[in-house]
Amino acid sequence: MKVSARNVFQGTVSQVREGAVNAEVTLALPGGSELVAVVTLDSIASLGLAPGKPAVALVKAPWVMVMTDSSGLRLSARNCLAGQVESVGDGVVNAEIVIALPGGNRVVAMVTREAVQELQLAPGVAATAVFKASHVILGVPA
Amino acid sequence: MKVSARNVFQGTVSQVREGAVNAEVTLALPGGSELVAVVTLDSIASLGLAPGKPAVALVKAPWVMVMTDSSGLRLSARNCLAGQVESVGDGVVNAEIVIALPGGNRVVAMVTREAVQELQLAPGVAATAVFKASHVILGVPA
Amino acid sequence: MKVSARNVFQGTVSQVREGAVNAEVTLALPGGSELVAVVTLDSIASLGLAPGKPAVALVKAPWVMVMTDSSGLRLSARNCLAGQVESVGDGVVNAEIVIALPGGNRVVAMVTREAVQELQLAPGVAATAVFKASHVILGVPA
Repeated sequence: MKVSARNVFQGTVSQVREGAVNAEVTLALPGGSELVAVVTLDSIASLGLAPGKPAVALVKAPWVMVMTDSSGLRLSARNCLAGQVESVGDGVVNAEIVIALPGGNRVVAMVTREAVQELQLAPGVAATAVFKASHVILGVPA
Repeated sequence: MKVSARNVFQGTVSQVREGAVNAEVTLALPGGSELVAVVTLDSIASLGLAPGKPAVALVKAPWVMVMTDSSGLRLSARNCLAGQVESVGDGVVNAEIVIALPGGNRVVAMVTREAVQELQLAPGVAATAVFKASHVILGVPA
Repeated sequence: MKVSARNVFQGTVSQVREGAVNAEVTLALPGGSELVAVVTLDSIASLGLAPGKPAVALVKAPWVMVMTDSSGLRLSARNCLAGQVESVGDGVVNAEIVIALPGGNRVVAMVTREAVQELQLAPGVAATAVFKASHVILGVPA
């Protein structure tokens, strides 16, 4: 499997909460982090997603928001992964931010250069990667 | 709170319509515009979202589509904010478009340069910013 | 209608499966491909979406992931369109990939330059465009 998504998280399904149409899947990552994904019940069945099964979570960099100084706000997004900026790759209007998580995982976010300046994103700065559960694509070994 | 999302709309919750798993939250913005967000019922409870409460809606620029000459089409997207292009910031493949809304708000969209040319986006041009309710992240003061 | 989305698929509604809040709409494209979109029941009613009706599916390029060598993975994303890379337009951090589908349609994806190198994306390479049903916006003639 080769995929353009900058974020490919390998983990193990720890919980599946089924709704009427969708289900919320929790993925435990090595190092103790957790991710939440919302997929359809059809996908739960066709991919055989169940606690204990290995799975990957795919998240494109433009779907990830970066937050610093998060003290003042609580968010509806289910995935808020706190870490530290590792690198900032600058383009003309966009910049690629890599955030290292405590457990050893990395999250890549695509933000505007304006945001890099406003948030003073630079290696070593504490930052949180934020993305919605509905933006995560799950995959399982074929 | 500092966040990389180019669109941070401050407003007041005007309506919450609860479904089985998700809820649709309407946010009234100063100047008369309205935004609709879809979040989980869990978030409604944990953030205490209810009519009259202040909240912010966060929308990343790559999630916003720009439409001109909208006469011929009706869309499934809940958020269609009509205004006027204020600025066009050009990159190599992407461009950042700022649309000023009548009520004084601004919406920032990231589109390709090709789209800028096809739609002849330039300051003063009438344009509509379009984004899905499921792409909005809500926040409340901590 | 003029819209910044790089992907505007003209098709015919072939199926509508209604849930409690959302509905899943299948769109048949000329050439035999199919797209799936998830929209609210409100949109089904207000746009009059029903089998046999013409509709367009709008998908922004940053919402499309590109996969090569897909043999090893099954995904939760409902839309996986297999084709062949037609062109690669390079920016500083991002690149625009055009994938030609067998039926004559094209899909445009925005990925990072890093991904272009890792996946060795170049004209003629077999590639699959992947996007979630919840990222599709539907439109109908006004």
